[in-house]
Amino acid sequence: MRTEEIKVRFQPSGRTVYVLPGTKIVEAAGRAGIILQTPCGGQGTCGKCRVKIVRGMCSSGKAGPKRLPKKLWSQGYRPACQTAIEGAQPAGEGEIVIEIPADSTFETSQKILVGDSGAKGRFNPVIRKKHFTLPKPSSENPRSDVARLGGAIGDEVELSPEMTRLLPGFLRAHDWQGTAVLAEHRLIAMEEGDSSRAVYGVAFDIGTTTVVGTLFNLADGSELAVASRMNPQIAFGDDVVSRIRRIREDSGALSELQRSILETVNDIIAGAAREAGVATANVYEITVAGNTTMQQILCGFDPSALGEMPFVHLFDRAQTLAAGRLGLRANAGAEVYVFPQIGGFVGGDTVAGMLAARLDQWQKPVMLVDIGTNGEIVLAYDGRMLATSTAAGPAFEGARITQGMRATAGAVEKVLIRGGDVLLNVIGDAKPAGICGTALIDAVAELLRLRLLDPTGRVLPADAAPPDTPAGLRRRLVARDHETHFLLAAADETATGEDLYLWQRDIRELQLAAGAIRAGIAILLRRVGLKPDDLEAILLAGAFGNFIRRNNARRIGLLPPIPCERIRFIGNAASLGAKMVLLAEEEREYAEQLRRKTEHVDLSLDAGFQDEFVSAMMFPDSDC
Amino acid sequence: MRTEEIKVRFQPSGRTVYVLPGTKIVEAAGRAGIILQTPCGGQGTCGKCRVKIVRGMCSSGKAGPKRLPKKLWSQGYRPACQTAIEGAQPAGEGEIVIEIPADSTFETSQKILVGDSGAKGRFNPVIRKKHFTLPKPSSENPRSDVARLGGAIGDEVELSPEMTRLLPGFLRAHDWQGTAVLAEHRLIAMEEGDSSRAVYGVAFDIGTTTVVGTLFNLADGSELAVASRMNPQIAFGDDVVSRIRRIREDSGALSELQRSILETVNDIIAGAAREAGVATANVYEITVAGNTTMQQILCGFDPSALGEMPFVHLFDRAQTLAAGRLGLRANAGAEVYVFPQIGGFVGGDTVAGMLAARLDQWQKPVMLVDIGTNGEIVLAYDGRMLATSTAAGPAFEGARITQGMRATAGAVEKVLIRGGDVLLNVIGDAKPAGICGTALIDAVAELLRLRLLDPTGRVLPADAAPPDTPAGLRRRLVARDHETHFLLAAADETATGEDLYLWQRDIRELQLAAGAIRAGIAILLRRVGLKPDDLEAILLAGAFGNFIRRNNARRIGLLPPIPCERIRFIGNAASLGAKMVLLAEEEREYAEQLRRKTEHVDLSLDAGFQDEFVSAMMFPDSDC
Repeated sequence: MRTEEIKVRFQPSGRTVYVLPGTKIVEAAGRAGIILQTPCGGQGTCGKCRVKIVRGMCSSGKAGPKRLPKKLWSQGYRPACQTAIEGAQPAGEGEIVIEIPADSTFETSQKILVGDSGAKGRFNPVIRKKHFTLPKPSSENPRSDVARLGGAIGDEVELSPEMTRLLPGFLRAHDWQGTAVLAEHRLIAMEEGDSSRAVYGVAFDIGTTTVVGTLFNLADGSELAVASRMNPQIAFGDDVVSRIRRIREDSGALSELQRSILETVNDIIAGAAREAGVATANVYEITVAGNTTMQQILCGFDPSALGEMPFVHLFDRAQTLAAGRLGLRANAGAEVYVFPQIGGFVGGDTVAGMLAARLDQWQKPVMLVDIGTNGEIVLAYDGRMLATSTAAGPAFEGARITQGMRATAGAVEKVLIRGGDVLLNVIGDAKPAGICGTALIDAVAELLRLRLLDPTGRVLPADAAPPDTPAGLRRRLVARDHETHFLLAAADETATGEDLYLWQRDIRELQLAAGAIRAGIAILLRRVGLKPDDLEAILLAGAFGNFIRRNNARRIGLLPPIPCERIRFIGNAASLGAKMVLLAEEEREYAEQLRRKTEHVDLSLDAGFQDEFVSAMMFPDSDC
Repeated sequence: MRTEEIKVRFQPSGRTVYVLPGTKIVEAAGRAGIILQTPCGGQGTCGKCRVKIVRGMCSSGKAGPKRLPKKLWSQGYRPACQTAIEGAQPAGEGEIVIEIPADSTFETSQKILVGDSGAKGRFNPVIRKKHFTLPKPSSENPRSDVARLGGAIGDEVELSPEMTRLLPGFLRAHDWQGTAVLAEHRLIAMEEGDSSRAVYGVAFDIGTTTVVGTLFNLADGSELAVASRMNPQIAFGDDVVSRIRRIREDSGALSELQRSILETVNDIIAGAAREAGVATANVYEITVAGNTTMQQILCGFDPSALGEMPFVHLFDRAQTLAAGRLGLRANAGAEVYVFPQIGGFVGGDTVAGMLAARLDQWQKPVMLVDIGTNGEIVLAYDGRMLATSTAAGPAFEGARITQGMRATAGAVEKVLIRGGDVLLNVIGDAKPAGICGTALIDAVAELLRLRLLDPTGRVLPADAAPPDTPAGLRRRLVARDHETHFLLAAADETATGEDLYLWQRDIRELQLAAGAIRAGIAILLRRVGLKPDDLEAILLAGAFGNFIRRNNARRIGLLPPIPCERIRFIGNAASLGAKMVLLAEEEREYAEQLRRKTEHVDLSLDAGFQDEFVSAMMFPDSDC
């Protein structure tokens, strides 16, 4: 099965993925972290997601030239949402090469976001540099040093006592010339000569598992480098709960955890700066989006209260910290912006996602869903918002799944059943070693479609399978311990040399996880008297959200029954939000507005939650 | 002559002074640092300056009961401006005791100021304490710690990252109760229990020679203690010029000078707190008014540019510094407010004085004059202001005067010539050791009146004295080195055992000093087309200004010819201003307004200055 996978390389980023034949380009690109814009919802009617097939075979089905200008079609452009990857040319050799035009990358229907291939949208960074040449003091012009500087770079400039102390010596040593570095109106550094083009910032998405930093040139908004690392706090526990527990039990753990994440941030800044050939001393701003626990630990704020009922976060408004005092190796005057927070488990990453999605600006109700161990759900309607979090558990990350694993090399990330065949897509050029969350959803959805799984979540014994079940599949229904399990790959095809199963108990785990998300969605909708069909869109954010198959997520009831074209991937929205506040000052006020307009809903206090949860655990009878 | 001095004790302060018979009580009180309010200009028509004669003989001349309610008169109250001190009872024994009612102390005609005997006027300190008891977190009320605190003490509260870090531990350790200390909206400290009554601040007047701190209870505005010390920077030079020179020549001198003044500030805070029985940890705010050099050194800001043309100061807007970072021993979160500055030698003390005098709020043009080594002059008219400084030299402080000295024990501070007798008032219970600035002015004015001194400043030889000159005075005109000098006290009456003279060359020094001040006054008036008589008032500020005799200052031409009742003492206006910004937040914005509305005038650039200066050095022909 692995042999059927096709390697696809995207230009200009050079990123590659392996996909099964028939995979839509829009999905393959998403797998590579490239979110294409699909304002028509992937209906093939807008032509915005066009990409250029440079090499390889792709089929565009019904999508003819009418959806793209004829000239573009003849140059090899195709609508990515309608075009499936078929195979390499010559067959079985080489790779498919697809070029992504910059303007095809993701935008919401409202505003241009920072896309994958460079900065777009609002550009008005908090950090500005101004080269100045001051008139020297004279009897005719004896004003103060501060006023003299203000005359050149803006009278509203604010100097800290420390900057005021440095000012007279600096001006006289450098012949009244230099470059001022401003954060809003605050002078944060002074530099010799004209250094106004060397001005950089790094936007961080600090996840529980992964930390990603993107280095930007703040002079022109261009993206220079991306670096990512595992979150080293994993050594203290996989999830936030175990890390909080460590902090509650060990008085030294908070500073250890803080130090470890700060070292990683330093490492990423240094790595990205090295890659881009810039000096870390010219990094003046660091923006951070993360969940409440990640953000609080980074700041050195005790997250212990997040570890017990009623799960209290420490701050709401965005924090601005001095990078130097945190021990970050950037410019000595650099500042760290940490996103606002809404509730105990509705943190800065959610606010950043709301920001990136312009969540309050849609015409009709819209929902933002970030699926993970902790699912965050925000419902926006009439300019107001309800936000909640729901404990889905780690099933989507492959944990507590018998043969589960994270979405790393060797993980089955996709399952397709065609006829009697089970097709698996494995991450990296490897034999399957286990399955990750997306494949779990796929497998369950496929088994539901084939009616090998009943709505209560029970895998049917081979002898109870529908009569039209192909023999190849029926053989995979394996009884053990009074339950039936589904064989995904036989021992001779796996990396472990063992059979790879979808176990009955794994399906139970998925039911719990999906039920929690779905119940959260249902409660929010019910609170304001809406039905799923009233939603203009469900925006799927986060790493996991971008990789699931929409139809399968809907089939298993993780998402409510609305047309697939209204379910949209918006990429790593937290990271996008962090970039946006780095690139435009006004985004910060917007983030506070979003926070203020959002009501936090505690599902555990909702009288209807248990009912919704139990009913959401049942799989839907059929697709919508 | 010393034997004629009368000891006067003022209640409730207990301060004592020695004065000559015939001295008005308002003047004697001023000598003791108590500025009585005289809205009528000392005309005896308003009765506002009433004091109670507890013991001793005083004569009120024409001022009969009609100027005071009969009942008060019969209780011993008298108008201080019209009542002269005559002698003790029994004669030559004991002391005069005068009680000063709190409401007789200084007010401007516009606003109530902080008087000598307690706080008055606006009371709305920047520092506020709020005791809080927070509802504990619950599922129904799970908001963040910061929001929870804000709900109790005001949602606009701002927490520094450091305070945010401390918050969760504090709240949980103290059962969600405590006292918040706020500076405006900034949380600067949190304390266990209800400490809301223990809230103190210290207002500092940091002079080149003397440093005075006044401790206030910020819960009720009451003045608790005053402490003063010599400015230890005197070891680096008497005046600002020599201290700046030291800093320019020695790279370590700035921090040495800064450390020395900060130690003195610490010493004063500790002394005042001990006297009042309060803890320095409950001192949360320190306000500072001083000249540009004193303020900049205190902040650790290099004043070198004040030591050379064109005399550039460093900052204009008020500075707020962290007391802890300066090494001040007050509360760890305490802040230091340092007054705005206007020009190279028009510093925070001048702005503080303008603030205390409400200088922009007078109906007609008014002038603020602070006489010292550096004379600061501010002319206010139509809501605008012109400010200048003029180098008077140290003559007014007794320096460069042959037998001059500071106004300390042993200094002749007042000279009266009655008939053929020269009456001297000496500070403290001592024989005369030298003369200070006020006595220099007195002596010159008296000699001018007797026509023993001509308008060019030449002391007439004995044989050229007017025919009606009493023999006792004619004998004092002593020729030496082709010049004539005036004998103030013979060797057997002095502490030094040497004759004490007013030397011809001392008169030249005074002419230079007074001429500089007077020329500055003249230039400012001319700039806006005003004559001296257009002035509603000349407000004399500062230690020296409060002790000079108005008629004598006018006689020698130091002040222009306007009626004495329009020349008003306003006490230590810089110190008053420092107290006002300590006691009321809105005074800070007012200080910035005054600064912004003030145009700095550089006399050296005024084409007419040399002319004015030369003409101002001539003594007026006669009194006005």
